[in-house]
Amino acid sequence: MYTVSELQVLFKNYLAKNQFHQEPQGLYEPINYILNLGGKRLRPVLLLMGCNLFDEEVTQALPASYTIEIFHNFSLLHDDIMDEAPLRRGQPTVHEKYNQNTGILSGDVMLVYSYEYLLQIKSKVNIPKIIQIFNRVAIEVCQGQQYDMDFESRDDVTIPEYLKMIEQKTAALIAGGLKMGALIGGASENDANHLYEFGRNIGIAFQLQDDILDTYGDPEKFGKKVGGDIVQNKKTFLVLKTLEAGNEEQRTHLSTLMNTDTEDELSKINEVKSIFDSLQVRQLSENLMEKYLSIAFDHLAKVEVAPERKLILKNLANQLMGREV
Amino acid sequence: MYTVSELQVLFKNYLAKNQFHQEPQGLYEPINYILNLGGKRLRPVLLLMGCNLFDEEVTQALPASYTIEIFHNFSLLHDDIMDEAPLRRGQPTVHEKYNQNTGILSGDVMLVYSYEYLLQIKSKVNIPKIIQIFNRVAIEVCQGQQYDMDFESRDDVTIPEYLKMIEQKTAALIAGGLKMGALIGGASENDANHLYEFGRNIGIAFQLQDDILDTYGDPEKFGKKVGGDIVQNKKTFLVLKTLEAGNEEQRTHLSTLMNTDTEDELSKINEVKSIFDSLQVRQLSENLMEKYLSIAFDHLAKVEVAPERKLILKNLANQLMGREV
Repeated sequence: MYTVSELQVLFKNYLAKNQFHQEPQGLYEPINYILNLGGKRLRPVLLLMGCNLFDEEVTQALPASYTIEIFHNFSLLHDDIMDEAPLRRGQPTVHEKYNQNTGILSGDVMLVYSYEYLLQIKSKVNIPKIIQIFNRVAIEVCQGQQYDMDFESRDDVTIPEYLKMIEQKTAALIAGGLKMGALIGGASENDANHLYEFGRNIGIAFQLQDDILDTYGDPEKFGKKVGGDIVQNKKTFLVLKTLEAGNEEQRTHLSTLMNTDTEDELSKINEVKSIFDSLQVRQLSENLMEKYLSIAFDHLAKVEVAPERKLILKNLANQLMGREV
Repeated sequence: MYTVSELQVLFKNYLAKNQFHQEPQGLYEPINYILNLGGKRLRPVLLLMGCNLFDEEVTQALPASYTIEIFHNFSLLHDDIMDEAPLRRGQPTVHEKYNQNTGILSGDVMLVYSYEYLLQIKSKVNIPKIIQIFNRVAIEVCQGQQYDMDFESRDDVTIPEYLKMIEQKTAALIAGGLKMGALIGGASENDANHLYEFGRNIGIAFQLQDDILDTYGDPEKFGKKVGGDIVQNKKTFLVLKTLEAGNEEQRTHLSTLMNTDTEDELSKINEVKSIFDSLQVRQLSENLMEKYLSIAFDHLAKVEVAPERKLILKNLANQLMGREV
């Protein structure tokens, strides 16, 4: 079996060999730009791990892992246009570096190429079946982004709606990649579905943790600015939980803070945090996150593969959740 | 065999039964809006005709014909954003009626659904092969749009470059649709390729005719405003031919007119036309268009199907070119 870093190297070499050198350059150069901004390549590596659980021959899953990475970057590219984001991984976003039309069109052709690589899978697997799984994921990612945008102007977002949104926007791609990798590696339908559920629950737990860390994280370790969600009035799980569990005074207080522009970001962060704290929202959020994690590990346990082969996935999931392994 | 209008009815019924009623509504409603703006449904009907040449059972090609129509409307939707177009078929464009972000994201999910329908083809055909043809088309359409945008800021566009652009942007989808339909209907590779070439050459001829009619068309019959290309300084075939065949004075005169804003559109149109006329550019354009048409019909003749079955395609092509049948 391959280690995580070996799989990262395999993937990075494949990426380097599959740069986009076609014409017209104006269409393809931005694709190389965004694909080479870096990152941990978590999603494609998870797909390779899904395959490697069942088969030593992980190279057969490299094209599909590239599909996942191309698709992920396509969605970042178009999301950045929609969010008018200036930076991505500390570098100018594609629409900033080039222009918006380039961003739209290069993103479009990336989406097409994500299918192109699925056609290159060399495995006994039924390719239309893999495309079907990928399609489902792609549709959910678009739907998740739409829900996320819709929520910005809504004041009645429920917790189930929020969980559905993060499932579609974030967890589906992780889940679908694991399932695709497993099937390419020869997994049974049953095992592939357990891996899907493992990925889906890990993905939701991971997003919940991101919400928690944005407010309660260690500024030294958290990549983004702590308190950013509060400053941007984002309807995170912490906010929705407060609106659900709080009394009328707490709800009104939070809503007023979220609808008021302020120069003094720090006192706003502290005021919102004190409402969260009065309701133990951090603890409630961590409980829910633990619930999803535990469901994830239950599904992993049911995959019919020797436990020692599954350790790598369990360890990676724990690492992602910031735990010692 | 089905008549053109029977195929149109078949397609329209399929479209009506396959509206997008999924949630979130904000993502799917704009898709129904653009798909229901109407039009002759030429591209999907051509795909059905490609199938019907070889098999009476055209319903098996309906999902693929829908793929072509969804993809075509996806490309219109995103092109309209890039061109900042306010109207499409006399109605507000999607980004005008809703907003730009909706336009981007609804377009994205349309592209995904165009693959979804390819997976629903009920035929003995190898589906990954159909997806491969469709992918090639989709990539070319994006590339054609990029070339078209690039040409706006270039002063050295050559005629071969222009022909490649219209081939990719316009002709590839017609050609690919015909080929896909033929293969779904059980055509040999050879026949399918001849139909591809028929469609490709018809598509180029059709675009050349559009360039000619935009300047020389009968205002009563031509759907758009005659002279629009000249007013917008578009680098049509007529312009590129003038820049290629003209002497220095003619070239400079045309370039000056194209780089000058004027209130008096009518005299600009007439001045440009007189340069075209001095070089017989209309005739030269028509000659080239005839050449493509003739190559198209040669390929159609080589398709190994009884000539009377091919008459419907020949007649439709002639109709599209504005000729009596």
